Amino acid sequence: MFQTPEKPYLGVAYYPEDWPDEEMDKDIARMKEIGVNTARIAEFAWHRMEPHPGEFDFSYFHQVVDKLAAAGIAVVLGTPTATPPRWLERLYPDVMAKGENGRVFSHGGRRHCCSNNPHYDAYSLRIVEKMAQEFADDPAVIGWQIDNEIYSVGKNGCFCPNCQGKFRERLRKKYKTIDSLNQAWNLNLFSQWYDDFSEIPAPRDAWHNPHLIQEWKIFQNDSHVEFVHRQAEILHKYVKVPVGTDTMPVNGMDYRKLTEKLDIVQFNHYNVPENLYCCAFWFDYLRTLKEHPFWNTETATCWNGSTAITQSIKPEGYCRANSWLPIALGGDANMYWLWRTHWAGHELVHGAVIDSSGRDMHTVSEVKDVAHGFHAASRFLTGTRVRPDAAIHFTSLSWNMHECQKVVEGWEYMPTVQDTFYRPMTRRGLRPDVIDSGAALDSYKLIFSPMVMSLDDRDLSARMAQWVKDGGVWVVGPLTDVRSADGTRYRDRFHGMLESLTGARWAYNAPDRESRIQAAWQDGEAFQGNTWYEMWDADDDALVKVTGGHSAIEGKALVSLKPVGKGWVLLLGTLPSEKDMDRILRLVCEKSGVALPQVEGDVMVCPRRGEAGEGLVLVEYGCGEAAVTLDAPMTDLLTGRRLQGKIHLKPYDVLVLQA
Amino acid sequence: MFQTPEKPYLGVAYYPEDWPDEEMDKDIARMKEIGVNTARIAEFAWHRMEPHPGEFDFSYFHQVVDKLAAAGIAVVLGTPTATPPRWLERLYPDVMAKGENGRVFSHGGRRHCCSNNPHYDAYSLRIVEKMAQEFADDPAVIGWQIDNEIYSVGKNGCFCPNCQGKFRERLRKKYKTIDSLNQAWNLNLFSQWYDDFSEIPAPRDAWHNPHLIQEWKIFQNDSHVEFVHRQAEILHKYVKVPVGTDTMPVNGMDYRKLTEKLDIVQFNHYNVPENLYCCAFWFDYLRTLKEHPFWNTETATCWNGSTAITQSIKPEGYCRANSWLPIALGGDANMYWLWRTHWAGHELVHGAVIDSSGRDMHTVSEVKDVAHGFHAASRFLTGTRVRPDAAIHFTSLSWNMHECQKVVEGWEYMPTVQDTFYRPMTRRGLRPDVIDSGAALDSYKLIFSPMVMSLDDRDLSARMAQWVKDGGVWVVGPLTDVRSADGTRYRDRFHGMLESLTGARWAYNAPDRESRIQAAWQDGEAFQGNTWYEMWDADDDALVKVTGGHSAIEGKALVSLKPVGKGWVLLLGTLPSEKDMDRILRLVCEKSGVALPQVEGDVMVCPRRGEAGEGLVLVEYGCGEAAVTLDAPMTDLLTGRRLQGKIHLKPYDVLVLQA
Amino acid sequence: MFQTPEKPYLGVAYYPEDWPDEEMDKDIARMKEIGVNTARIAEFAWHRMEPHPGEFDFSYFHQVVDKLAAAGIAVVLGTPTATPPRWLERLYPDVMAKGENGRVFSHGGRRHCCSNNPHYDAYSLRIVEKMAQEFADDPAVIGWQIDNEIYSVGKNGCFCPNCQGKFRERLRKKYKTIDSLNQAWNLNLFSQWYDDFSEIPAPRDAWHNPHLIQEWKIFQNDSHVEFVHRQAEILHKYVKVPVGTDTMPVNGMDYRKLTEKLDIVQFNHYNVPENLYCCAFWFDYLRTLKEHPFWNTETATCWNGSTAITQSIKPEGYCRANSWLPIALGGDANMYWLWRTHWAGHELVHGAVIDSSGRDMHTVSEVKDVAHGFHAASRFLTGTRVRPDAAIHFTSLSWNMHECQKVVEGWEYMPTVQDTFYRPMTRRGLRPDVIDSGAALDSYKLIFSPMVMSLDDRDLSARMAQWVKDGGVWVVGPLTDVRSADGTRYRDRFHGMLESLTGARWAYNAPDRESRIQAAWQDGEAFQGNTWYEMWDADDDALVKVTGGHSAIEGKALVSLKPVGKGWVLLLGTLPSEKDMDRILRLVCEKSGVALPQVEGDVMVCPRRGEAGEGLVLVEYGCGEAAVTLDAPMTDLLTGRRLQGKIHLKPYDVLVLQA
Repeated sequence: MFQTPEKPYLGVAYYPEDWPDEEMDKDIARMKEIGVNTARIAEFAWHRMEPHPGEFDFSYFHQVVDKLAAAGIAVVLGTPTATPPRWLERLYPDVMAKGENGRVFSHGGRRHCCSNNPHYDAYSLRIVEKMAQEFADDPAVIGWQIDNEIYSVGKNGCFCPNCQGKFRERLRKKYKTIDSLNQAWNLNLFSQWYDDFSEIPAPRDAWHNPHLIQEWKIFQNDSHVEFVHRQAEILHKYVKVPVGTDTMPVNGMDYRKLTEKLDIVQFNHYNVPENLYCCAFWFDYLRTLKEHPFWNTETATCWNGSTAITQSIKPEGYCRANSWLPIALGGDANMYWLWRTHWAGHELVHGAVIDSSGRDMHTVSEVKDVAHGFHAASRFLTGTRVRPDAAIHFTSLSWNMHECQKVVEGWEYMPTVQDTFYRPMTRRGLRPDVIDSGAALDSYKLIFSPMVMSLDDRDLSARMAQWVKDGGVWVVGPLTDVRSADGTRYRDRFHGMLESLTGARWAYNAPDRESRIQAAWQDGEAFQGNTWYEMWDADDDALVKVTGGHSAIEGKALVSLKPVGKGWVLLLGTLPSEKDMDRILRLVCEKSGVALPQVEGDVMVCPRRGEAGEGLVLVEYGCGEAAVTLDAPMTDLLTGRRLQGKIHLKPYDVLVLQA
Repeated sequence: MFQTPEKPYLGVAYYPEDWPDEEMDKDIARMKEIGVNTARIAEFAWHRMEPHPGEFDFSYFHQVVDKLAAAGIAVVLGTPTATPPRWLERLYPDVMAKGENGRVFSHGGRRHCCSNNPHYDAYSLRIVEKMAQEFADDPAVIGWQIDNEIYSVGKNGCFCPNCQGKFRERLRKKYKTIDSLNQAWNLNLFSQWYDDFSEIPAPRDAWHNPHLIQEWKIFQNDSHVEFVHRQAEILHKYVKVPVGTDTMPVNGMDYRKLTEKLDIVQFNHYNVPENLYCCAFWFDYLRTLKEHPFWNTETATCWNGSTAITQSIKPEGYCRANSWLPIALGGDANMYWLWRTHWAGHELVHGAVIDSSGRDMHTVSEVKDVAHGFHAASRFLTGTRVRPDAAIHFTSLSWNMHECQKVVEGWEYMPTVQDTFYRPMTRRGLRPDVIDSGAALDSYKLIFSPMVMSLDDRDLSARMAQWVKDGGVWVVGPLTDVRSADGTRYRDRFHGMLESLTGARWAYNAPDRESRIQAAWQDGEAFQGNTWYEMWDADDDALVKVTGGHSAIEGKALVSLKPVGKGWVLLLGTLPSEKDMDRILRLVCEKSGVALPQVEGDVMVCPRRGEAGEGLVLVEYGCGEAAVTLDAPMTDLLTGRRLQGKIHLKPYDVLVLQA
Repeated sequence: MFQTPEKPYLGVAYYPEDWPDEEMDKDIARMKEIGVNTARIAEFAWHRMEPHPGEFDFSYFHQVVDKLAAAGIAVVLGTPTATPPRWLERLYPDVMAKGENGRVFSHGGRRHCCSNNPHYDAYSLRIVEKMAQEFADDPAVIGWQIDNEIYSVGKNGCFCPNCQGKFRERLRKKYKTIDSLNQAWNLNLFSQWYDDFSEIPAPRDAWHNPHLIQEWKIFQNDSHVEFVHRQAEILHKYVKVPVGTDTMPVNGMDYRKLTEKLDIVQFNHYNVPENLYCCAFWFDYLRTLKEHPFWNTETATCWNGSTAITQSIKPEGYCRANSWLPIALGGDANMYWLWRTHWAGHELVHGAVIDSSGRDMHTVSEVKDVAHGFHAASRFLTGTRVRPDAAIHFTSLSWNMHECQKVVEGWEYMPTVQDTFYRPMTRRGLRPDVIDSGAALDSYKLIFSPMVMSLDDRDLSARMAQWVKDGGVWVVGPLTDVRSADGTRYRDRFHGMLESLTGARWAYNAPDRESRIQAAWQDGEAFQGNTWYEMWDADDDALVKVTGGHSAIEGKALVSLKPVGKGWVLLLGTLPSEKDMDRILRLVCEKSGVALPQVEGDVMVCPRRGEAGEGLVLVEYGCGEAAVTLDAPMTDLLTGRRLQGKIHLKPYDVLVLQA
């Protein structure tokens, strides 16, 4: 009987079908030596499993699973729907997606079929069902991955007739009558008015209405969500192990919607030293979606390479720190893409565990070290969870809205939130959950909601109001609560609910790329804003006021702290500098009772608590010196060292500290 | 009886049809308070006026006009042809323009119909006639605007079958026989030769002949001119008030041709502090087209924003100075786009007078100040005109030719003329007319003609020769008189007529981006040219000679002053530096008897003269300190101050000085 | 009887058909005065020779040839197939090429027909045969040029149905069975697997397999090669003088394949002072292809200009040095494009010998000087050849492979080889042949093979091994011998044959854009690599070892010198700095017995030897001071001066030194 490996899993993407048979035993033996205990297979191998329509042959992959299992390596099976065989296009040419430029995609890459195409759908579901029937009872299969990195082709997805028809049908369902849509989007403007849903164009070849584009983008993403859910429904009929789909942070996908019918969150990232904190942002989000710990299904051991390498060798320890980050932040699997670099086709120079030649890549020693560490800390990691009492909002609807009608040119939603809010928080040692509009609020004392353009999203507006009244401390703005769910503006106020909630009165907005606008804290210290300013009539409680720029705006409040019920609302009218953000952070942590540890340098502080006790995982991610001061003595499970007081970390150090 | 407001008009673009009915009274009351006395309406409201084909309903806009009139606010009516309703495409799919990429434009933006399409034309003219019949007798309607910012889609316009057919028909009319065209364009080259007009392609998908491209570009613009003229013809059957069309400085449109069947010149601009002098250039041009003062039909109060803002809050006073500039330079209306920011659809963050929310934007105080100033100076402004005795050529044909075959990469016609010639002139206090090829010449003593590639344009070659012989001082070059009207080169000389007019002999041209070419004035002072050099055999009267670069060009003349009849021709072989331009300016002003006032800083000096007396309007436009020395004492009508001698201006100061 | 002019030829491209008849006598008289002795004509004049299908009229060009001949000017005749007349498209619309974007090219430019189209082919071959019959016996015609600068439209050529069909047919011939292709390209990956050759797409609209793209690119080039060969076959039936085709260094064309059925290599270049050494690279290559000296069929006298000029006047002497370079390096013709700037159509501002106006351009004095020099050195130049004993590889297959799957982003094959290898060599006075994969090796003592991705090319792998064993010194790498001919990687080793040849063992690769990797020579001197590193297990003979970057790579060898048979292999794992390249150069020249002259500055040292004696041509090409030390006294044939010892050159000096 197969013995499921200890968690956290250390895995690889493995494509034995692309190699001569004689390589398999050597590869698997080497995996075992290195400490790899999980392999993800079959995700692109549709043709190998169904070489001709309806002729299925799973013998090869049974053999692969058996060989892996024999080495104690567990298997994650991928459904191969990202790469349908050429014969499907031959049978049904309409399966191919159609680009925004009107040209039909060609066979030869990935995800070239339309998720809304009925033939593609039928053939996809059939092979998924066959796979499920074949492997449902294999104990070595510990999980499933549906498709691969599913998202839309091009910037705006597929424009085939099926997509256009389904889009119009969706609008009909949502708005009921065409005039209700005309009114919601103010299509009187420019005489855009439609007389029938059938007349609504897919948004290309014109300066289109942002509300139409937003709806289209969400529709495209939802098409993929539904395709994944249809696969999940079939898998769930047969398999007991967790089912997920591996995703990447692109295109404003709604991960909550995507994973609500799945058992597990799977995630791929290829961050590099310069932006390693950005994948931590995602891990802090993924953790909130499911009770089941997430899996980091893909990351590189050393560098990416599609056909050409654009990266550099990483500093020593990077591979190790990068492998630990998802685990530290609540995942229980880290898997490398890929085991062995392809010898032909695409991605011929992508970093891997071993090279095409069969020889180790230079990072193998770090991979081994990770394997040992996962083992040493296994009990503590599986018996504890990360449960912060602060959170930061990041919503799919806002993401889409920023894509369709960002207010300030150059303000991309994700990097702005990451750089201006998330990064300063984590540098102060604050561990936030990153939460979307659907997350429950009651476990948090402190929530940041920057750039959440619309709160008209899963009842967020009312829920935030109640949460504040119940005692929460809410840092809100800039550019939050400024649009309806459709992306339209309010006609009698600038914000949807902030005035009525706080009693403050909004006065003016202004953009400023040239540092014309000046501001200062109550005590006279200069305050540095950035590019976009929302200004309020100032009361005595204004924390920061405008001191220059134009006589009409001088004296207006840029940051205000308003009591609301048992809680507080901090109205933030601009992006603060890191120094000013620190001052705000200290203020709101104090107001909310959220503790800030003593941290120096770039270190992710990951407090963990659970049946296995209490502790901290620390990961230095900036390739520099860092320090954390412990409240009480702790033991580093990786080295056995007993530590207390101020602990010094070297570049890419990882410590698993148990109290 | 409606009392037409006092001039200059201060107006707004107003879209009440996009708002709930209850907003209209509030909006109009606020307009009146602020001092707005004109509103432009209906320009995009085709669907509101003709919701179904042939079903017209003007009751709503009668109500709007009546409410505005009741508040003393005059109305400019726009014909809505830039935004035909969706039902027109349903009836006649061929109305949609076809892009250079072969794809048909989609409903949802603006100007997506082809100006050459007969169905679009018929439906357009029908609604224009209906509107004219409805509103011709309404005393509150003081003017009409045809369409909106009409110009070609994309870079090279519409490639639909109608356009291609009309283009070939135009060529047949112009060249009579196909061989005459083959010869004019030298289509022997590359075996391009056509056997029939039907074989001539619309210029895309090849490295096309620049003469073909030029003809196509002019054809595309003329298609819009004709469409506007057809609308004007109908309006003129019914209405007595002035009819115009609002334009923007793009695409080489021939404004003289466009406005020759119109009563008034209308103009939109969205310049910013960095290039505010560029709209002054256009005002100096617009003034020369019609006896009727032009209207600045659109400008922003504070910033542009399509969906995203790319600009900054303007320094205090900018809104005021920007509003005054068109008036100072000869217009009698300044109108803001728009009254109130849209709440849905496009341009959700565009600057306006009031915000979507119904609250003032921060520039309202400046708008009010403008209203007061227009009132205070009304009598003087309406009783005087700007009539310069110097001019600078800027022709539509040259513009198109530079687009099709600019000689020097990077030399865009408009900015080069504005930066190298117009701006230094205005900084010395010289007020020029900017004139096109059709302008009468006799009122000028001094004319600059830089980069006028062809003088084979409305008899300009012969008229300039006569004007010089009659005593004019002509600064000509570089790149002037170097092409025929078709854009071909002369086969036995470099310039068309400059050698025969002046007796000088052209020797060489050379490009130079690397400062290899050196030159000096007769007295040894270094002369700084720029990138392109035309060199002549030098006589004793050469003002500037080449002193280095290549032995073949050394000693050649770069600037020469040649007596011709009673006048002078200054041959200018390159773009001079601002210092050298100053020396040239002083020289030719002295030769021509054109007075140069004493000015420091960036101030538009706008001398005015007429039945209401004599005076100057001064507008500081560089956001700095400036000064002007008056010859005689004058009174500032805005403040009542009596001023004499050297007057100091602060950033964005505006003075209306009456002698 | 026509007397063939003395060599080297000094020629021009001449288009009398684009001018009034009366210009021809004047033009030819001026050519003769200046010293032009060759004219290339008719290359675009298909319509003039066949104005209607099947109606041929060569009388005009007989007249042109006769007039030129009468002036002693020889003629090179161009076949006009780059510019078919419009009537061909009328008869057969399918002749037009189809771009990668799916749009059919339009008449109006050049090379808009598909080289694989049977109708285009038939009409092309017919006019070529007619021309051949007409002019075969004319003694003034001294050579033929087929087509003009033939290469693919766009980046990836023509996608018309003919091309797609021929491509599939080519694959069938090459791989015999579809599964053999599937296996060679590993099309199991991504389920790309094809069941039939008819299913293989032309590579667009997907993230395509690099092996497919490579095959397509080579196929496109081969289509042009075959089209040229079909023309050559016809010409060879009639004409005795040499036949060639003028090419430019683009798109990875295989010049050896192209010229194998031609008699002469023709070449166009438009290099400028900044990259003049790059055309020398090509001349060093062209010389190796045929025993017949090559012709430089096009270069500019002063500057390029399509419609706009992007360049500058050149320093004095540049025209002369540029004209001498091809002669110095083994050509026997230098021809200017063009005689007289076009007066209409394209390229209206291109540099020429004389201007459109009929007047001299400023470079005429330099052209005259070149004519005198060619005459003065004629006997020596025609009686000697350039025969180096060192060579550098530059192969068409590698070029295509780098285009399809370059390993390091930003490493373009041609400029990297030119800048990092060729230029340092020539600055040390080394004169290499540049050789492709088909060149014979036995005349060389020293060969550099950088970035030759595949040696599986014309048996190069085995031939290099034998050549080394026989005593050659081979500098190999980086990125050499790393792919099969299809572009796939080896599955059990990194290099194809380097390990087995040298006994060294490859360890790791790593990219590095951030100077993390450090290295040093055995004696401790720092070694500076660049971006890509191939590292070997180090023996005592490692010349350069890695000293930092990651513990796994430290101590590995980056440069090693391995004895192999009677020869040596220098394994080079990165791009060395110029200083390190110097050290390598000195080392391998010493090992191989290749002499390095004493040179300072940028001077091409061109040793010549033959029946006319021995000597050197020196061309300063960097526009600076330079010096060369002679071993023995020599006479400069251009000035008659007797020189010895250290000779100083001024910018763009040319010396033809006979021992």
